[in-house]
Amino acid sequence: MDRLAPVGHPVHDIIRARYSPRGFSERAVDRHTLACVFEAARWAPSSFNEQPWAFILAERADKDAFDGILDCLTPGNQGWAQTAAILMISVARTTFERSGKINRHAFHDVGLASGFLALQATALGLGLHMMAGFDPGKAREVLSIPEGFDPAAAMALGYPLDPEDMSAEAREKALKPRSRKALGDFVFARRWGEKIPELS
Amino acid sequence: MDRLAPVGHPVHDIIRARYSPRGFSERAVDRHTLACVFEAARWAPSSFNEQPWAFILAERADKDAFDGILDCLTPGNQGWAQTAAILMISVARTTFERSGKINRHAFHDVGLASGFLALQATALGLGLHMMAGFDPGKAREVLSIPEGFDPAAAMALGYPLDPEDMSAEAREKALKPRSRKALGDFVFARRWGEKIPELS
Repeated sequence: MDRLAPVGHPVHDIIRARYSPRGFSERAVDRHTLACVFEAARWAPSSFNEQPWAFILAERADKDAFDGILDCLTPGNQGWAQTAAILMISVARTTFERSGKINRHAFHDVGLASGFLALQATALGLGLHMMAGFDPGKAREVLSIPEGFDPAAAMALGYPLDPEDMSAEAREKALKPRSRKALGDFVFARRWGEKIPELS
Repeated sequence: MDRLAPVGHPVHDIIRARYSPRGFSERAVDRHTLACVFEAARWAPSSFNEQPWAFILAERADKDAFDGILDCLTPGNQGWAQTAAILMISVARTTFERSGKINRHAFHDVGLASGFLALQATALGLGLHMMAGFDPGKAREVLSIPEGFDPAAAMALGYPLDPEDMSAEAREKALKPRSRKALGDFVFARRWGEKIPELS
């Protein structure tokens, strides 16, 4: 099923088609497909090409590992995320490998690579749903994430479920109209707050 | 010209074609095209759908504004970025609009939206080069960025120059082979450091 964004200006198909699914089919994601998804993150740009991202995943068939990540999610996210084929935690290296100094752009670059991940997943018919709602301290413990690295976001990946196959409650949430700020609320020219007539 | 990433696994065309140009043609970017580029960022996902991103841009024809942003860049970036049609600074809202609490994912989500921006630019034949090398304090002053918002990255946007039209020095940098870590260096299963045979 398609949940095309109601765009105000044309955008590329995979950007328009991306959304955050709230339910997944039982179909597993094979590792060749998984390699293609992560290959997209691999080619994201980053400050000094540091690539300060890592991803720790658990496949649903690997029950202990899967439940370990599921346990880190907020109860609200656990409900739908337990149907995902893959759960994962993205991780940011907080300092530069080259100098040991704080990398101000670590989270920025992890987010950027994660966006590439989400779009490549979309291109392959998969859906990726990122979550801020998880316990970073618990994730660090469960996944043995070392000092100097920070758990950034949780993610559910899988083949999205058609809303007609969802429970009534999930379907209602899935079909809720998608909304965003207007361009004029976040694109300015020359200085903060100065709007551009064609981008309003 | 194409600078296709030497991928180890197939990825979508616009992800493979994206790169960070180090030189731009004199062609301006019209505002309809610009609206399409920002529309892509608009539809990026974010924590609580807060969309904590903003972008302040200056067109090269608008010399004072353009030079204002150019002045914020490190000298190394000024050299090539001055040929861009557009310079901009991305900005992160550091707290949640809904609660006033710190948004741990502000930079993450700005990076994510900026990745969408870069890919949409690529789809339109443009190039976007992000830079960590700029002075955030100066950018705040020059662009009147209010408290509660943090300058995140600088960006140059425009139609990329063909390397054969660059100076010898720029061409050499532009044609340098692109490199990334191996998948096995940043994708783990079950716990930190545990590699996946098919993703090595």
